[in-house]
Amino acid sequence: MSAENLHVGVIGATGAVGVELINVMFDRNFPVGELTLFASERSAGKTVETKFGTKTIALFSVEEAKQCDIVFLAVSGDFAKEYAPQIAEGALVIDNSSAFRLNDDVPLIVPEINGDLAKTAKLIANPNCTTAIAAVALWPLHQAFGLKKVIVSTYQAASGAGQPGMNELREGLAAGLEGKPVPAEVFAHPLAFNVIPHIDSFQDNGYTREEMKVTWETRKIFGAPDLPVSCTAVRIPTERTHSEAIVVETEKAVTPAAAREVLAKAKGVKLVDDPANNLYPMPLTATEQYDVEVGRIRSNLIFGDHGLELFVAGDQLLKGAALNAVQIAEASIAD
Amino acid sequence: MSAENLHVGVIGATGAVGVELINVMFDRNFPVGELTLFASERSAGKTVETKFGTKTIALFSVEEAKQCDIVFLAVSGDFAKEYAPQIAEGALVIDNSSAFRLNDDVPLIVPEINGDLAKTAKLIANPNCTTAIAAVALWPLHQAFGLKKVIVSTYQAASGAGQPGMNELREGLAAGLEGKPVPAEVFAHPLAFNVIPHIDSFQDNGYTREEMKVTWETRKIFGAPDLPVSCTAVRIPTERTHSEAIVVETEKAVTPAAAREVLAKAKGVKLVDDPANNLYPMPLTATEQYDVEVGRIRSNLIFGDHGLELFVAGDQLLKGAALNAVQIAEASIAD
Repeated sequence: MSAENLHVGVIGATGAVGVELINVMFDRNFPVGELTLFASERSAGKTVETKFGTKTIALFSVEEAKQCDIVFLAVSGDFAKEYAPQIAEGALVIDNSSAFRLNDDVPLIVPEINGDLAKTAKLIANPNCTTAIAAVALWPLHQAFGLKKVIVSTYQAASGAGQPGMNELREGLAAGLEGKPVPAEVFAHPLAFNVIPHIDSFQDNGYTREEMKVTWETRKIFGAPDLPVSCTAVRIPTERTHSEAIVVETEKAVTPAAAREVLAKAKGVKLVDDPANNLYPMPLTATEQYDVEVGRIRSNLIFGDHGLELFVAGDQLLKGAALNAVQIAEASIAD
Repeated sequence: MSAENLHVGVIGATGAVGVELINVMFDRNFPVGELTLFASERSAGKTVETKFGTKTIALFSVEEAKQCDIVFLAVSGDFAKEYAPQIAEGALVIDNSSAFRLNDDVPLIVPEINGDLAKTAKLIANPNCTTAIAAVALWPLHQAFGLKKVIVSTYQAASGAGQPGMNELREGLAAGLEGKPVPAEVFAHPLAFNVIPHIDSFQDNGYTREEMKVTWETRKIFGAPDLPVSCTAVRIPTERTHSEAIVVETEKAVTPAAAREVLAKAKGVKLVDDPANNLYPMPLTATEQYDVEVGRIRSNLIFGDHGLELFVAGDQLLKGAALNAVQIAEASIAD
C-alpha cells in the first residue's frame, strides 16, 4: 500500500475509541488523504469537529467502506462479524472488537511484538485493552528471561465500557456524594464507590470472558500457545487508564535491576520505578500517554530469583485501543 | 476476667475505627458496665453522642486507663509503643496498631483462627486490615487443603487512612467532577479518579510495609512461619471495604465445589458465589457487614487442580479493625 494520502474510514467515529482514533492519527501524522467517518442512521448527517476539520458523518455502507484504503472498526463484535470480511475485500480492516481475535486466519497484533504480520493481512484484530497493556510490559521480559507463569489482577476503568460507562461513573459519583442512589445501567452494579469483579460474561470455568481474553490473546500474540496465564478482571471507579498487578515466574534467574534494564529499552514502555520519590505507575500519570508505565518491580516472595512482581498502567483508550490500532496501520505501510 | 459490667476504655474514640468500636460493642451486647473515652488535650472535654449515650471525652492518662478492665487502642503505633505496656499492667490492652504485632510475646489474633490465645494475654495485637480480611477466607482452605503459595492483589478503600482519608476522597471526587485540582495531603497522590500502588512505606526489598504485613502477619496468625505469601497493596478510590484478588496453590487437590463446601461452613465468612445471578463479593454489599464475602471461586489456570482463585470483600473498619478487636475482647472473657 502506498504510504501517502490514504483514504481512511472510521466506523464508530463518535464513540470513545473512535474519537481517540482520529486524534491519534492526527497527532502521529498518519498519512490521511481523505477521512470518512461512518455511523448508523441515528448519527449519519450530523457534523463533528475533528482535528482534521469539520466532518459530516456518512451513513455506513459496505460499498462505500470498501472504497477506503484502511478502515478502522470501533464498533461491536456483532457488527464486525457481519461486515468486516466484506469490507476487507476492498480495504485493510483493523477491527477493535473481539470478533476475529482468535481466528487462525486473522493476525492479532501488538506492533511492538508482532507488527510484521500487518504487512500482508487484509483483516487485522486489535487486542483486548487489558491484554495489549500487559503485553508491551511482558514481551521484553519474556524474550529476556522466559515467562513460565503469569498471574494478573486488573484495576479497569469505566472507559472500558466506552463513553456510556464513563458517563455513568460520573453520574454515580455525583449522586453518591449527595447520598442519592447510584445508577447501574451500563454496569451490572453501581460502580461509583464500588468494585465489580465482573467484566464481560461468565464462562463455564468460572472465569469471565474478559479474563480468558487475557489468557487466549497473550498466548496468540506471544506465539506461546501453552503459556500459563491467569487473570482476575475487576472494574473500579476510575475514568480511564487500566492498571494491572502482575506476578511472573521466569525460566531464567532474574533480578529487578536486570528487568529494569530490559524494560528501560523496551518500545512502548515507560519505566516509572522510583519508589523513594513516590514514582510508580498510576492512572493519574499514564492517562493520555502513549507509553505503558511499568514499575514496582521487585523480586517475588513466591518464586524467588525466578520471579518478579510488577505494576503497570496504560491508557485504555490509547494503547488499550486507538493507539494500538493506528500503530497497526503504521506497521501495514512500513517499508 | 468477669464477663459482666466491664469497665471499657477506648483511646482514639473519635477516629473512624474508634467510632466503629463503640458501635460494634453496643450491637454485639458486649458487657460494658462503664465506658470511658480517652483522647488527647485537643478533644478532651468535648462531648460525643454514642449508642451508650452522651459521653464526655476524658484526657488520656496511663493511671486512668489502667483502671479499666479492657482498653482498646485505636491510635498510632508510636502512641501504642509508648503507652500500651504501661496500661497493660492494669488492663487487658487490645491494640489496633502495628506496634506489637510481630512481637513474640504478644499474640496476634483473628478470633476465628486463634481466639484461644486471648484468654491469658494482657496485651493483644489486632492484625492489619487486609490481613484479617484475607485470613478468615484462607484459614479454612488452609486447614482443608493446605496452602502452599498465596498471591494477593488488594483493592483498598480510603478508610484505611481513617476519617481524614475518607474526607479527602470525597473532597477529591467533588473537585474532580468539576474539573478542579484534586487534593493530596493524606495520600501520596490524588486518590480520586486514580489508583495508588503505595500504602505505608517502601522496604529495601521493594515491597511496602503494608504488603509485608500481609506476609508476616498471615504467617504468624496461621502458625506457618515459612508460608510463601506475596501481596501487591493498592489504594483505590472507594470509601470503605477492602477487596482482594487471591490466587493459591494447595498441597491437596481441590475443586471449587469442595472449597465452597468448606467456606459455606466457615465462621466469619459469607459465601457470595453465584455469578449466573451477578452475585460475587463487592464493597457495595460487604460494607457495614461483619462477615467477609468470598466468591469468584474457580480452579486456577496456573496451578490446575492444586490451586484456586477467589475474590474477597470485607469492611475495613469492621473485620479489618473494630469488629475483630471486639471479637478478641469477647474471646478474652469466653468460658
